[in-house]
Amino acid sequence: MASSPIFSGQIISVDVEEHELPNGRRGRFEIVRHNGGAAVLPILNDGRLVLIRQYRAAVGRTLVEIPAGRLEGNESPEACITRELAEEAGYRAGQLSPLGKMLSSPGFCDETIHLFVARQLTPIPPSPEEDEVIEPLLLSPTAARQLLQQGGIVDSKTQLALLLYFSTEDAP
Amino acid sequence: MASSPIFSGQIISVDVEEHELPNGRRGRFEIVRHNGGAAVLPILNDGRLVLIRQYRAAVGRTLVEIPAGRLEGNESPEACITRELAEEAGYRAGQLSPLGKMLSSPGFCDETIHLFVARQLTPIPPSPEEDEVIEPLLLSPTAARQLLQQGGIVDSKTQLALLLYFSTEDAP
Repeated sequence: MASSPIFSGQIISVDVEEHELPNGRRGRFEIVRHNGGAAVLPILNDGRLVLIRQYRAAVGRTLVEIPAGRLEGNESPEACITRELAEEAGYRAGQLSPLGKMLSSPGFCDETIHLFVARQLTPIPPSPEEDEVIEPLLLSPTAARQLLQQGGIVDSKTQLALLLYFSTEDAP
Repeated sequence: MASSPIFSGQIISVDVEEHELPNGRRGRFEIVRHNGGAAVLPILNDGRLVLIRQYRAAVGRTLVEIPAGRLEGNESPEACITRELAEEAGYRAGQLSPLGKMLSSPGFCDETIHLFVARQLTPIPPSPEEDEVIEPLLLSPTAARQLLQQGGIVDSKTQLALLLYFSTEDAP
């Protein structure tokens, strides 16, 4: 496989690679490499969900999302999401359960996002990074479901985490 | 806003941009620009779902997905998905209904994917592009749900389309 490195940044790198396909043909592919991430749906003891409103430069607007972050080096998804839950939402979790995993856009990118649910939450002071502008948004499951149905939640990891949570038996 | 173009390819382009954040600070962001895409969950008259198995160079393996493609120029999502449904799955749809839309990874990428359900399908000869290796996979809704629950479907647009479909009232 021939590979030409195009860009190596802080968050992503980009290669143009020639791959042999299963049918024996060769193809040229533009590929975004990402170290992977983790995202968490935090659930308060009263059942409310902890979402965040975060400005996203890539789309030039503020989105409703769940807390999430990029894996640093060989960090485990659990360690990553424990850090992000503290920094972005201001909670420590007593219980962290895997909810699934997703490839965000495998047509051109290798990013895997590991999804979790966090329960038994204890508030701690949030500490967002300098380039993160984040506000918490506490929603009942009913309000979150309505916001999703009305198109107010467009971030794929957040949509997926909510739908997976709503599809489990213990969800209201 | 200062922007430095890094790469301009066939599928994506990459910029490094300096943005002013809502709090007045400035941040430097690596941003992947993508023209957007469309994806469709095709449903046969007998209720079976038309999925595809497709080799994905970015992750080096074959994934179970729904038919999808990239918007060409100013193409509408409906026109895009009509073309991809024919090319990748070999069907013409009598009815196309919007199912939602998603941002695949807004932390660093502006890609929007428009999701549809297609019904009243008529088979036509598929015509995949040269660098696409695609096999159809017809599944009952029950089998698709099992495959999803067992972790056999990891592509986010496919996970989301299936969960949105299963959450509607007419799904089995």
